[in-house]
Amino acid sequence: MDERAPVPPTSGEVQIEVAYTGICGTDLHILHGTMDHRVQIPQTIGHEMSGHVVAVGPDVADLVIGTPVTVMPLRWCGACPACDAGHHHICHRLNFIGIDSVGAMQQRWTVPAEVVVPLPADLPLTHGALVEPTAVAVHDVRRADLCAGEKAIVIGGGPVGVLIALVARSIQAEVVLVEIDPHRRAIADRLGIRTLNPAHDDLAGHVRAWTGDAGVAVAFEVSGSATAIATAVELLAVRGRLVVVGIHSQPRELDVFRFFWRELTMVGARVYRRADYDTAIKLLRTGQVGAETLITHIEPLTNAAAAFDALRGGGNVMKVLIDCQETS
Amino acid sequence: MDERAPVPPTSGEVQIEVAYTGICGTDLHILHGTMDHRVQIPQTIGHEMSGHVVAVGPDVADLVIGTPVTVMPLRWCGACPACDAGHHHICHRLNFIGIDSVGAMQQRWTVPAEVVVPLPADLPLTHGALVEPTAVAVHDVRRADLCAGEKAIVIGGGPVGVLIALVARSIQAEVVLVEIDPHRRAIADRLGIRTLNPAHDDLAGHVRAWTGDAGVAVAFEVSGSATAIATAVELLAVRGRLVVVGIHSQPRELDVFRFFWRELTMVGARVYRRADYDTAIKLLRTGQVGAETLITHIEPLTNAAAAFDALRGGGNVMKVLIDCQETS
Ligand SMILES: [Zn+2]
Ligand SMILES: [Zn+2]
Repeated sequence: MDERAPVPPTSGEVQIEVAYTGICGTDLHILHGTMDHRVQIPQTIGHEMSGHVVAVGPDVADLVIGTPVTVMPLRWCGACPACDAGHHHICHRLNFIGIDSVGAMQQRWTVPAEVVVPLPADLPLTHGALVEPTAVAVHDVRRADLCAGEKAIVIGGGPVGVLIALVARSIQAEVVLVEIDPHRRAIADRLGIRTLNPAHDDLAGHVRAWTGDAGVAVAFEVSGSATAIATAVELLAVRGRLVVVGIHSQPRELDVFRFFWRELTMVGARVYRRADYDTAIKLLRTGQVGAETLITHIEPLTNAAAAFDALRGGGNVMKVLIDCQETS
Repeated sequence: MDERAPVPPTSGEVQIEVAYTGICGTDLHILHGTMDHRVQIPQTIGHEMSGHVVAVGPDVADLVIGTPVTVMPLRWCGACPACDAGHHHICHRLNFIGIDSVGAMQQRWTVPAEVVVPLPADLPLTHGALVEPTAVAVHDVRRADLCAGEKAIVIGGGPVGVLIALVARSIQAEVVLVEIDPHRRAIADRLGIRTLNPAHDDLAGHVRAWTGDAGVAVAFEVSGSATAIATAVELLAVRGRLVVVGIHSQPRELDVFRFFWRELTMVGARVYRRADYDTAIKLLRTGQVGAETLITHIEPLTNAAAAFDALRGGGNVMKVLIDCQETS
């Protein structure tokens, strides 16, 4: 969807021949917003990707041409209060590559060497394109302090919600996914995730029966809806943790008294740290993420616009990859 | 304020000759609610207290008559999901002695032996009556994970807010107290606590200057006001923690997106655990709580009604104790 010439790597840069680029909800928002304002797409997007190193600039000693790689698309300033406190991933001046600067949805992509993450040689590159969203889910589960044997609910069953459920299961937590769309529930079913339909099922009743009147230890709010976050607060056990993953564009009315009374916790979780990438790669490599089931569509770069349309249209769609390889 | 005959201790019980009983905000709410409904005060209240053991029932082996004591006024069921999870202090069926059952505002008070906490012989009994509210503050600061050198703001400068500021200072955190009432600010000043007046001072500007644009690590919301909790969220640094101490009787509109974007945390903090009592006693004994300054009024039991009126009326009032001793 972009015909600009590839940029050759300069000092400290790496050029990647892109294999696959995933489309995420943020990408859709960017394109949708753009189209609403009837302006051109400002730049190439894409930040979930896999590929091979094809060229390295001077001073790049540790990346060999031909290495399979993905990118952790964060650049931080190193000097703001967040960076000073060691929270580089939520830097006040974070540059999110693929959103704030040129992204991966092209054949050759030049990036700073420090954002390149090598992939295991035996990991299919289709799966490698899932490292970034899986790292989001790993980060969300870490922020929840979720432990083996604890019960968790995930509200919102798009790719991130399903990945959170899978990561939670990988640490032996018990998980239920709440999702209204039957296609998404069917995909979760195929992955062995127990689901509930908030339009028909009595969530509170199910949680009471499941947890012996205790409530869940953790609720992941991935939907961004006002109703969902209020429901999440009601479903939590004493000392339960609500993880805010979804984007809430408006202030939300929350039962703050219940936070006091049950000593609840709400934590925000944004992007990831490098350790989350390492865990995500391990989970994908060991098949704990069900990549084959999650990837419902692979479209050639020449057909990217149609892929975005399909994703917006809903239906039997979970993760859509764009095949950026020259042979396609 | 209650003339009922003292109940002698039966098996497992202890009778305390009450020296001092503090009045807290909850007590005021109970009385105020009662008077609004034009009914009699239902029972003796009071849960902040000090005294001496005067009689023990059978099977009470470890409490000697004459021992100075206070009470940790919580009784839990031991069988609910909260108790099963080890969170006895927020038991689903918590009996808060002095609210849910007969309290300390009388000359002789009979309680279960397991709620009695011995006090050091050298701690004045006026100070001993501050153990319970100090334990609340200790618990709040623990729930915040506040560390030495971190900057914290406390919104609401009644007894609990001031005690939180003092406990935070005792662990070498830097604290600013926000309070609109000039009398309360004056008392905090005397205790060496830096204060701001939200009606006149630019809170956000002060916090920016104080923290180098970072924001505070911790905000304690002690006021219960909708504006205060929204302000607290704005003042937090990345990964900042908002501790909900005040009672919010209505749902509150919160900037949930900011929780996501800055990876903020909100935690509820309710009552205390036994370790909080031990710390509170140590802080009072070492003079880190400024009990002499906090206690602004001591009234005899025969004058309790006037003491409640004074507290409701505001003015130069912080902590009011009722002297329950027979000599008074
Ligand atoms: Zn930074
Ligand atoms: Zn219980």
